[in-house]
Amino acid sequence: MITSKRTAQATPEALHRIFTIAEAPDSTLGRIEQEISHNLIGFLNNRIVASKNALTDIEQDFICPRIPEQPEFVSDHIHHLLDKLVAQSVHTASPSFIGHMTSALPAFILPLSKLMVGLNQNLVKVETSKAFTPLERQVLGMMHNLVYQEDESFYQAWMHSAQHSLGAFCSGGTVANITALWVARNKLLKADGDFKGITRSGLFAALQHYGYQDLVILTSERGHYSLQKSADILGIGQDSVIAIETDENNKIDCQKLAQKCQQLSAQNIKILAIVGVAGTTETGNVDPLDKIADIAEQYQCHFHVDAAWGGATLLSNKHRYLLNGIERADSVTIDAHKQMYVPMGAGVVVFKDPSSVADIEHHAEYILRKGSKDLGSHTLEGSRSGMAMLVYASLHIISRPGYEMLINRAIDKAKYFAKIINEHEDFELVTEPELCLLTYRYVPTSVQRLLSAADAEQQAELNLILGKLTKFIQKRQRENGHSFVSRTRIKVACYNDEKVIVFRVVLANPLTSKETLRDILAEQCLLAQESENFLPQLLAAAKV
Amino acid sequence: MITSKRTAQATPEALHRIFTIAEAPDSTLGRIEQEISHNLIGFLNNRIVASKNALTDIEQDFICPRIPEQPEFVSDHIHHLLDKLVAQSVHTASPSFIGHMTSALPAFILPLSKLMVGLNQNLVKVETSKAFTPLERQVLGMMHNLVYQEDESFYQAWMHSAQHSLGAFCSGGTVANITALWVARNKLLKADGDFKGITRSGLFAALQHYGYQDLVILTSERGHYSLQKSADILGIGQDSVIAIETDENNKIDCQKLAQKCQQLSAQNIKILAIVGVAGTTETGNVDPLDKIADIAEQYQCHFHVDAAWGGATLLSNKHRYLLNGIERADSVTIDAHKQMYVPMGAGVVVFKDPSSVADIEHHAEYILRKGSKDLGSHTLEGSRSGMAMLVYASLHIISRPGYEMLINRAIDKAKYFAKIINEHEDFELVTEPELCLLTYRYVPTSVQRLLSAADAEQQAELNLILGKLTKFIQKRQRENGHSFVSRTRIKVACYNDEKVIVFRVVLANPLTSKETLRDILAEQCLLAQESENFLPQLLAAAKV
Repeated sequence: MITSKRTAQATPEALHRIFTIAEAPDSTLGRIEQEISHNLIGFLNNRIVASKNALTDIEQDFICPRIPEQPEFVSDHIHHLLDKLVAQSVHTASPSFIGHMTSALPAFILPLSKLMVGLNQNLVKVETSKAFTPLERQVLGMMHNLVYQEDESFYQAWMHSAQHSLGAFCSGGTVANITALWVARNKLLKADGDFKGITRSGLFAALQHYGYQDLVILTSERGHYSLQKSADILGIGQDSVIAIETDENNKIDCQKLAQKCQQLSAQNIKILAIVGVAGTTETGNVDPLDKIADIAEQYQCHFHVDAAWGGATLLSNKHRYLLNGIERADSVTIDAHKQMYVPMGAGVVVFKDPSSVADIEHHAEYILRKGSKDLGSHTLEGSRSGMAMLVYASLHIISRPGYEMLINRAIDKAKYFAKIINEHEDFELVTEPELCLLTYRYVPTSVQRLLSAADAEQQAELNLILGKLTKFIQKRQRENGHSFVSRTRIKVACYNDEKVIVFRVVLANPLTSKETLRDILAEQCLLAQESENFLPQLLAAAKV
Repeated sequence: MITSKRTAQATPEALHRIFTIAEAPDSTLGRIEQEISHNLIGFLNNRIVASKNALTDIEQDFICPRIPEQPEFVSDHIHHLLDKLVAQSVHTASPSFIGHMTSALPAFILPLSKLMVGLNQNLVKVETSKAFTPLERQVLGMMHNLVYQEDESFYQAWMHSAQHSLGAFCSGGTVANITALWVARNKLLKADGDFKGITRSGLFAALQHYGYQDLVILTSERGHYSLQKSADILGIGQDSVIAIETDENNKIDCQKLAQKCQQLSAQNIKILAIVGVAGTTETGNVDPLDKIADIAEQYQCHFHVDAAWGGATLLSNKHRYLLNGIERADSVTIDAHKQMYVPMGAGVVVFKDPSSVADIEHHAEYILRKGSKDLGSHTLEGSRSGMAMLVYASLHIISRPGYEMLINRAIDKAKYFAKIINEHEDFELVTEPELCLLTYRYVPTSVQRLLSAADAEQQAELNLILGKLTKFIQKRQRENGHSFVSRTRIKVACYNDEKVIVFRVVLANPLTSKETLRDILAEQCLLAQESENFLPQLLAAAKV
């Protein structure tokens, strides 16, 4: 780090300079920018973290709660950031960072992001976004078309209509899911006779008016935690999210779902929504959406599909069938910042019916006036950036066939990984990949034999110790800094539906190679051997 | 626009290139980036829009709902964006764009934004953000300190504590306000005996358990529309947001507030929260926060301050006193993307009590495990970008004295503008600036005389026509493309509390000069004269 002898000063001239510095490549800022690029390329090499300090150590660099009284020169501060922040951040784009849903981004995203930030549009209203408003409406139209495939005249009628919207652009899948359930709730409990509707009169009055004992949301036990959060925020309560058991493939058991619906109806408990999952966060499986649609139709409740992860699969003509039935959903969440390779902050919810958003519409005197095309009149958020541009650009530059290639190759890669896990004598594949996610664990071949011979109680004990081993390997591997898989706990059918700790991987990064995957398994074997004391414990547990 | 003869193809090699293009300044992408910078500088010149097509014309460029089957070369697509999008977007950073709360940004924001996007951290959990998590916690600490000024030991104890949080970083003020009221609601209706709390059991059961007839939120009639939206989402209902009248300075009338509280208590209606406004969206006035705090204390209800706009005033030692009493608030919203000059997408809510967030905590198996320092366990949103870095960098590079200078100068500029409006015989200043906002309208001196001599009915008629004139001038000025003021409708004391249409300006852009302001008035005079037919109408209305 270069230490500056100069001292920055907060003068009117210095401030003016900060707001006006030209961006020519030979200017100070141009040089700084090149330096950042070089550092970024250096950082984005080989390792998942550039420096592997413990979090508590890193915290020591971020300890001061006082706002500085002394300004810093831009170049000095950027050196500080490279040193203390970038070097200690996570290389989410690394080919061997396969534990979460972040991936490498296309390189064109960087200059476009700068363009987006430089323009600093606010999509809440046309007055601060102009062409960005029709652009966002077009992106919503394209995402709607991806799901519902309506004909040209449908989009001509609704895409740019002031009173309608094909969806809402959100900061992420959680806000998208809340928005979908907000629409569902307000539609169900709408104005009726003297009752002014939940929007104006609230949930308490609404339930009294309609005579419902309770509202519930049904989803599989693999449903994302944002559904509980939504139920909390919307006043329905987390316990009203009823988790329906999944089958051995982590898909909702539709027979149990139908039974539950019948039982609830008999109790006069209204089903607000059934939420199908298209790509569970932990295993990547897709619920039988067509069957869920039948049930939702029968009980006349809102059918929402949380396709935050799996929605992009619709771009693949080969795998699109996995989501059959999604076109019958009333609303669908898709995160563009997941498998559509745009940066964090791009969630979308689309609605089958373009007038759905009427149930969450709001206005103000200074903006969002009735009849305006301001997008802010039907979004949960207020001010929003021009992120939709990055989705628009990606859809044009990569195109559908490009996305299909990315998605098909990711699924193939997951199948390859499953295959080498199956072939390896010391690993156990826990969930097969349907999309590009899978889970597995390290179980030495000798212990595999013990497990299959053991009774339920012994199995439970063995799995407890194996869980500790999985945790040990996962943590140690992360700390080594070459690769990262995540871990989770899931119910496993062959172990009496016991919850078992497993490695979880997401293979969306196009730069992850087969070699990367082989290396990750090899490192895990080595780490397992480093911890010799697990084997005696396992043998003792099996009472051998 | 350069038309390419080449045709892009979706091949594995082309896709690989898209994800790996080096960023050296002499590469294709480097050249594209320079071109974008040059275009951006060209665009960010003089005018508020580069091309002034009507929205319906622009929509014709954004009409296709199909996802392209044919990929585009990056350079071709960027030319398309510059041509169809950038040229038709809004120059929110223009010195003469003074109608909304967007401003020029410091130039260092651009390379830092690129760094942020390039790193693509996800702040929901430490595993995908590492040093960004302590950084965000420090930023929340600094913002907390700005409001509450607790001592060093307080921040040492709570800033990095896994079970606590000094606030939440949000995509904007709306999510910040919802989060604050969500916390207030869940705290008020917490678990109690057999009752499991609203979080689990929902609002209906909670109100029954506590025996409340209703919950209400009190705020001034100048409160932001996001409060109604929050009440809708949280299940309380928009009608439960009770608007208390403001005085002649657009500040909540505390006597009326106290009366209303007393009346509600007598009816067994529980006050969930009183929301003070620190910088109303339309006029920039600050409620008497200290007096509101007294009332909130008396009725033991949550005291929230919506300082989305005005919170940054705390950085000015000179003007900080305007917000006296804010340190008694249970929660405070501040938008860094407003008067702290960072790009769209940086809202903050801070909590006086670091354990407040316990009431909205949630967990999941694969992340947000209990005891982790994952920020996602107490935010409304899930995946979030590293925006906090831009606030951190701005606080260090600009520093408090730098911000003070920006804020003081903005207020001085607003006072100057008020002065020249007052001195001009054909303008009427409607609201005096307290922060850097003011409202005014064009009223020819002859009509001013008519107005003061008129009875209430005549005044109403005159104001109706003057409203049309204001609207005419505002629209025409926007269409001319040199400058932009917004308009709104506000209640005006001297006209029997009638709602009157006014120009609204926000003078936060440091590049706006006194000359800009004089030019804007001059243009408005010219536009008024273009519309000769308003004067006869006005005279007729006054029955002269």
